[in-house]
Amino acid sequence: MDIRHTFGSNLKHYRTEANMSQAALAVKMGVDRAHVSAMERGQQNVTIITLWHVAQALDIAPAALLNERDEARLAGR
Amino acid sequence: MDIRHTFGSNLKHYRTEANMSQAALAVKMGVDRAHVSAMERGQQNVTIITLWHVAQALDIAPAALLNERDEARLAGR
Repeated sequence: MDIRHTFGSNLKHYRTEANMSQAALAVKMGVDRAHVSAMERGQQNVTIITLWHVAQALDIAPAALLNERDEARLAGR
Repeated sequence: MDIRHTFGSNLKHYRTEANMSQAALAVKMGVDRAHVSAMERGQQNVTIITLWHVAQALDIAPAALLNERDEARLAGR
């Protein structure tokens, strides 16, 4: 799986787990909701500092956003 | 620790573990040795695709490059 999709799938997974909307995450990160949406769709080749900001906003370890979770693999995304 | 330093410290750790010189890794990645050196010193805010290329060249999981290893924390780098 393209690492951008791994990242996007994990982002969506942890955001949903935190009961946070894309809009709420966007506000917390100080970015546009469209940017959150694009990241989740695997359309953004983000830098590690942006990845760190996402992890901070979701209160998870940065590395968790790059892990190949089984359900992401199974979904083929 | 700044995520750029976490990344750089992990890169150096796994490159050394693979008995690979900075020059050899640079050739394998198709980049300059100076770029490898700058990444290891935590001076590069790399994208996740670049991080993926590093992981491929070192034959490790991308997430391993963002893990906070204890020795890296202890070294305060």
